[in-house]
Amino acid sequence: MRIPIDREQATPLYEQIAAFLRQSILSGSLAPETRLPATRQLAQDLGVSRITVENAYAALESDGLVARRAGSGTHVLPQDLLLPRQSGGSMEWPLWQRDALDAVQFTQAATGEDGDTVHPNLISFTGFGDPRMFPIAEFLKALKDVIYRDGYACMEFGDMRGYPPLRATIAHVLASQGVQTHPDNILITSGSQQALALIAQALLKPGDTVLVESPTYDGALDLFRAHQLKLIGCPADAHGMQVEQLEPLLQQHHPKLIYTIPNFQNPSGACLSLARRRQLIALAGRYNIPLLEDDFVGELRYEGRVQPALKALDPGGRVMYVGTFSKLLMPGLRIGFVVAEGPIYERLVQLKRVNDLATSTLIQRGLEVYISVGRYHAHVRRSSQVYRKRRDALVAAIQRYLPAGVHLVVPQGGLFVWARLPDGMSAARLLTLARAAGVEYAPGARFFVQTADGESYMRLNFATQTVEDIGEGVRRLGQAFNQLSQQR
Amino acid sequence: MRIPIDREQATPLYEQIAAFLRQSILSGSLAPETRLPATRQLAQDLGVSRITVENAYAALESDGLVARRAGSGTHVLPQDLLLPRQSGGSMEWPLWQRDALDAVQFTQAATGEDGDTVHPNLISFTGFGDPRMFPIAEFLKALKDVIYRDGYACMEFGDMRGYPPLRATIAHVLASQGVQTHPDNILITSGSQQALALIAQALLKPGDTVLVESPTYDGALDLFRAHQLKLIGCPADAHGMQVEQLEPLLQQHHPKLIYTIPNFQNPSGACLSLARRRQLIALAGRYNIPLLEDDFVGELRYEGRVQPALKALDPGGRVMYVGTFSKLLMPGLRIGFVVAEGPIYERLVQLKRVNDLATSTLIQRGLEVYISVGRYHAHVRRSSQVYRKRRDALVAAIQRYLPAGVHLVVPQGGLFVWARLPDGMSAARLLTLARAAGVEYAPGARFFVQTADGESYMRLNFATQTVEDIGEGVRRLGQAFNQLSQQR
Repeated sequence: MRIPIDREQATPLYEQIAAFLRQSILSGSLAPETRLPATRQLAQDLGVSRITVENAYAALESDGLVARRAGSGTHVLPQDLLLPRQSGGSMEWPLWQRDALDAVQFTQAATGEDGDTVHPNLISFTGFGDPRMFPIAEFLKALKDVIYRDGYACMEFGDMRGYPPLRATIAHVLASQGVQTHPDNILITSGSQQALALIAQALLKPGDTVLVESPTYDGALDLFRAHQLKLIGCPADAHGMQVEQLEPLLQQHHPKLIYTIPNFQNPSGACLSLARRRQLIALAGRYNIPLLEDDFVGELRYEGRVQPALKALDPGGRVMYVGTFSKLLMPGLRIGFVVAEGPIYERLVQLKRVNDLATSTLIQRGLEVYISVGRYHAHVRRSSQVYRKRRDALVAAIQRYLPAGVHLVVPQGGLFVWARLPDGMSAARLLTLARAAGVEYAPGARFFVQTADGESYMRLNFATQTVEDIGEGVRRLGQAFNQLSQQR
Repeated sequence: MRIPIDREQATPLYEQIAAFLRQSILSGSLAPETRLPATRQLAQDLGVSRITVENAYAALESDGLVARRAGSGTHVLPQDLLLPRQSGGSMEWPLWQRDALDAVQFTQAATGEDGDTVHPNLISFTGFGDPRMFPIAEFLKALKDVIYRDGYACMEFGDMRGYPPLRATIAHVLASQGVQTHPDNILITSGSQQALALIAQALLKPGDTVLVESPTYDGALDLFRAHQLKLIGCPADAHGMQVEQLEPLLQQHHPKLIYTIPNFQNPSGACLSLARRRQLIALAGRYNIPLLEDDFVGELRYEGRVQPALKALDPGGRVMYVGTFSKLLMPGLRIGFVVAEGPIYERLVQLKRVNDLATSTLIQRGLEVYISVGRYHAHVRRSSQVYRKRRDALVAAIQRYLPAGVHLVVPQGGLFVWARLPDGMSAARLLTLARAAGVEYAPGARFFVQTADGESYMRLNFATQTVEDIGEGVRRLGQAFNQLSQQR
């Protein structure tokens, strides 16, 4: 135990030691039943006499903070904790701390969620895929197999680009999706979020401009805002980004990156048409702007014609393709990847290394053992069947329970239904009523560059709830609509 | 399967499909034995007739690329792979790619390691702790317990700051080390490297100056260089950073951060004296500079008096304390943490979220189940006993086998012996001979701001090899010294 003591202070050493331990116990940082070091040991550690430590322990005992038990040493007794947590205090922070706070916008759209009264059996239309679809016992078996097979190797750092056999498996999965790549052009990341973050670090500096679809994934907006980037939104419709409107935006704003989710977009569910895909690649090439393709659920198609990934149309090194196992398998795995070629790939590997050295080798190896191309496709098929039924249930329930003024385009895949409320209705105000009624969704503001543009939108995730709960949830949402109409 | 096809091209559709699949097979991205989609399915996916797909598959079959087996579909045959990997080509990258490369220094000190002839039974004095000290079977059991106990919850994202019970455990471990904190001031990171990276992102912008010990941890230097920061080294001796020399450096260079490893420093093994600790805190306060304390192996003390962490001497919010389970337990876990208070804590949480959302909840929960304060201390004691013997073996072997001109200070803990070679001898040149003789170490240049300052130093890790292999490794190193002397 390392206790700060000061031999030049007037306070006796035993009292300094006792004071430190007293504060540790009362603040809860030394938990009840913790055994204090033996007096001989602590005396040696601190370079004081054993009597000094004995005196300190005796003082704590007379305070009722510890008990000395014959043969088992000195233990902390349960206490009513007195001290507030440090962050909660009104302490004067050092000046650099106040500077750090001032320089940064903690921008997140106000959603009206805090302080809401919440129903005890809340049905939530938020989140991503349904983790109950994941065969958790089989994954545990894969972890066990890999620990027996690889021994201590699965506890070491491993290849900074990611476990090579897992990169090979990903290359095979991508090939089956029409994206031809080599394992040496794949970098494993901690979820797709880290892939986006590394690309932002590699290519952008504060004040640079990023062009995004409007609306788009709020986690990307938060990332770009945290890096103090300027955001330009390109309007989107039922066929994705309106690429026809792109060129004047590129000429006017000179973005350093175009971020797009071409398949079953988050939040809108739209798929970018093939003609727009070709046009987007051509424009990015003409204006020399890197394209970041976030293909978070491209395989979850329930009907309609598949579209090639932008990466598959890329004549070479223009598109960075980001994928993930989080949405389809398990968010808690934190395994995503980026495909890139050329100097940018090397730069991303370097940044991955300085950011966190590597993604957990144990999880990477477990995933590699668990997943094969065939197993992956079987999982996609199974998930698609289940999620399609849930989408249908959500659309039917909306038609049944919600006012006719609610507009939506039925998505052909993915996880989300994106709905526009009747004119003048606020999704944030509705949410407060909805949560009280026992249902929640993601209000639209957080997905827009200009949050006001999203006031009348809501995103409903249909993948995480059963068909029955979807019906019940939308019925409750209908109640909230009625209440809001009556308030107006 | 998503295959890019173009209906406006002169090339027939079946030939476009066949060409895409042919390249996928020859590049290895479609592996042998992969089953191609059923013709009906692919036709539907691509919006073409089934005959078109049949014709494409027939073309591939006549090329000897696939085999059609009755009842089990069309399979890829093994091939001699023909195409080079994409990164290896002499392709013209887009202009923005060349810009991205030019703007960045891929600085890592040249170490002369590449291209060396390496002995088949290399004894390596590199790395960190010994993963064989980690009870891997018990950790697997903890993972199993947590999966049965928590079910799908351990597959979800969880609290962005880290799994709350694990933060509570860390607070208890820290309290036992004399650092009083609250779980709400702890942020779990992907290893301590991510903690350093988040702090750099939070507080520094390109061109800012960071003050470090010289020498210091190469992973931190790489991180700071990747962010295009200026580095100022403060000289260090056997008692750590020479804090007496610090004030003029602060006045001259106005650093935005001081980075220090006060305990068993990497690479020097030195411990900062208590007087210097107090002086460092006072100076950081007076000049309003944040202190980053990297305590990567502070608990691994083999003798001598324990010193309080800088964090324990911090009157409030000046010091950010970074710790890790990687060195003591398993690098492959990728679990570290940072302790901070005030606005900077909130900023670090925000950056963690935009960088990778959260660290694997499964691993966090497994670690929390595995580790208790008592078990952690038992593990520290066991490791300390083993590593102390290895340190003694390394020091004895150096005295026996290496020339008298090799200087070192015996470290009182940690993982490393830091040795200075006889005048004029290059650790990088010696390394080439050493690797041929069957032993390696970390040459000194990579640990210095000015790499030339490290030419005559080597860092030897004594923790990862057995006592026997340490003796044999240093004997081989002695051979390399002899060879190098003869070359001169």
